[in-house]
Amino acid sequence: MMEEMFALRAKQTGNSDLAELFKLSERPDVISFAGGFPDPQWFLPEVEEIGLEILRDKRDVALQYSPVPGLTRVREFIARRMDKQGMPARTENIMITSGSLQGLDLICKVFLDPGDLVVVEAPTYLGAISVLDSYEAEIVSIPCDSEGLMVDKLEEYLAGTAVKPKFVYTIPTFQNPSGRVLNLERRKKLVELCSNRQIPLIEDNAYGELRYSGKELPTLKSLDARDIVVYLGTFSKIFSPGVRLGWISAPGYLINKLILFKQSSDQTSSSLSQLLALEAGTRGLIEKQIEITRKGLKLKRDLTVNALEKYFGDNGQWTVSEGGFYTWVQINGPVDTYKALEPAVKEHKVAYVAGRSFYPDRSGENCLRVCFSLVKEDYIEEGIKRLARVFSLA
Amino acid sequence: MMEEMFALRAKQTGNSDLAELFKLSERPDVISFAGGFPDPQWFLPEVEEIGLEILRDKRDVALQYSPVPGLTRVREFIARRMDKQGMPARTENIMITSGSLQGLDLICKVFLDPGDLVVVEAPTYLGAISVLDSYEAEIVSIPCDSEGLMVDKLEEYLAGTAVKPKFVYTIPTFQNPSGRVLNLERRKKLVELCSNRQIPLIEDNAYGELRYSGKELPTLKSLDARDIVVYLGTFSKIFSPGVRLGWISAPGYLINKLILFKQSSDQTSSSLSQLLALEAGTRGLIEKQIEITRKGLKLKRDLTVNALEKYFGDNGQWTVSEGGFYTWVQINGPVDTYKALEPAVKEHKVAYVAGRSFYPDRSGENCLRVCFSLVKEDYIEEGIKRLARVFSLA
Repeated sequence: MMEEMFALRAKQTGNSDLAELFKLSERPDVISFAGGFPDPQWFLPEVEEIGLEILRDKRDVALQYSPVPGLTRVREFIARRMDKQGMPARTENIMITSGSLQGLDLICKVFLDPGDLVVVEAPTYLGAISVLDSYEAEIVSIPCDSEGLMVDKLEEYLAGTAVKPKFVYTIPTFQNPSGRVLNLERRKKLVELCSNRQIPLIEDNAYGELRYSGKELPTLKSLDARDIVVYLGTFSKIFSPGVRLGWISAPGYLINKLILFKQSSDQTSSSLSQLLALEAGTRGLIEKQIEITRKGLKLKRDLTVNALEKYFGDNGQWTVSEGGFYTWVQINGPVDTYKALEPAVKEHKVAYVAGRSFYPDRSGENCLRVCFSLVKEDYIEEGIKRLARVFSLA
Repeated sequence: MMEEMFALRAKQTGNSDLAELFKLSERPDVISFAGGFPDPQWFLPEVEEIGLEILRDKRDVALQYSPVPGLTRVREFIARRMDKQGMPARTENIMITSGSLQGLDLICKVFLDPGDLVVVEAPTYLGAISVLDSYEAEIVSIPCDSEGLMVDKLEEYLAGTAVKPKFVYTIPTFQNPSGRVLNLERRKKLVELCSNRQIPLIEDNAYGELRYSGKELPTLKSLDARDIVVYLGTFSKIFSPGVRLGWISAPGYLINKLILFKQSSDQTSSSLSQLLALEAGTRGLIEKQIEITRKGLKLKRDLTVNALEKYFGDNGQWTVSEGGFYTWVQINGPVDTYKALEPAVKEHKVAYVAGRSFYPDRSGENCLRVCFSLVKEDYIEEGIKRLARVFSLA
């Protein structure tokens, strides 16, 4: 048995929810609220012209290796863009990554020995849980309420533990999976708490630019006077997940180690993708796409929430997100959404991600993540109706 | 000091040769024999049209997430291509990677706990050494002679050790850095040895399709009747490194774990890149580019070897490669090519990679890797002349 030769991390890892999820999302008769995919109708046709120009005029750069941390002009573009968003950033502190999850992977590579403590909010991004598991981290979950991570509870935890966590990972804005937003007071307190205790604070801001209602809040990074925040950005939700491009803005003590491990992971990210994103950004197309995406998401959120009202009524609660891709649904009464997933897909032809997938301790059995970004407008009500049937509510 | 929080692997890792190397390669007044870059004049202008078509007609796929192991049509294309090259491969055993180094990274993630043994040939690919170091592997080096890895020595080593290595990593064809080819008898023996001992044999075949003289030899994979070989392929040297695409063909016991760890590394590789490579391949453009690349490399190899004859003469030995990007030069007498690198670049305006970078034990002080693929034909002689000056031979 060759499997006996596997490392401990491989022996401990079972099959993955995310892989299953990608497969499910491919079946045409299933209405899928599962994968966090943008709607391709938001992709701009203008990229066609850009692709042609890059491969005609800059082929020698587009098809060649880029420097390990990314093409300098792309890093500069990102630094300027962050600056405009109130986050002072310097080109040399920015590294291009192959999606923002790779940013977290590389952070783990720098910080984590097996058994090291990491703090996350619960529920949290299931991709982050897989990455942390692959580094054999000891995950500490701090609960959330409607205002996001309960920073008081984090403070209590930190005051009571002898072992300092290696970092805190959080998605403060339009959180995956809950759609929740961390309120301003907590943002300030979280940055202060981590700064005082010198615990790196990883801010995953994949959805932050996709606000469609309510009032803008500062990112943790923009509140960070003492360089405690490591910021993860991505082009996946505002431009294209298919180009596999994210970035990390990290303090000086950290960035060179990240670059070093980037080099021994995939060496560098796609030059072609980098040029495509840069040209789209320079021509204002990313901002244009963000506007279109916001409008599209708002429409779909409204359809989703209205359908939930109609078909779930008093049988559950759900978040009404002000931005991003997700509604988080809690069903009243005893139900295991994880067990219900197979019949949901096979009999009821509807997919979602079960609550358990977002909790390191596999709780959240009566919850599910409803991602409304990819489902066609005309199918949202039908999809929610099928969901209600899965849980015998309709 | 935040650095105190770093993991052991990060504390142990110093600055990297490869990062320095990428920087050096950017200075316009330096003739660089350093980075293993293809010459952009070999990139085909036809990709321009393909880029346009993909972003016009398949935008919804090109800009969207691909399934974790890659787009099915791309995996099928690779399986068919391997089949034609005498390597039976099934689509479900193939996973797309973001360059072949990521393949090795993921293999390490599956197999290696800190301190685990891995066998490499010495000298070997410096990127592989960095990856193995990042997993805190215990690296065992088996020497090479002009016919490649000395399989006898490997056999002796395996017979004498109580601890079974987790895998053997080798580049049998046009090896990086030496340009050498493992002979047929040794290929057969190596596959048999690893099969009998049930030690996974990782074949990195980045350069195998780039033969410009001599007789074709079977890959290890094509000699593998007992599924011991894990095969790493890449589009970097035959199509484009900028698209960051490689693949791994792995036995059934391994492929699903690789897919799982791919998902928690960068989730999936660029769909845009995958479609570009697929279309180029389907239209015969990859084979066309390989032909052009072979011719270009042969010319450059000849210029390099002739210049070495002229300026190094009796002061050294070098390999006359039958394929690939590299000539490996050994200088007679006491010299440290690693120490000489800084003056070489700063004073003599010529770059290379020092021998030490390719030995896990940092030996090879009188050797250097001369990569002739990127240097313009007209500059090769001048570059070798500068190299001779670095070592006071001219």
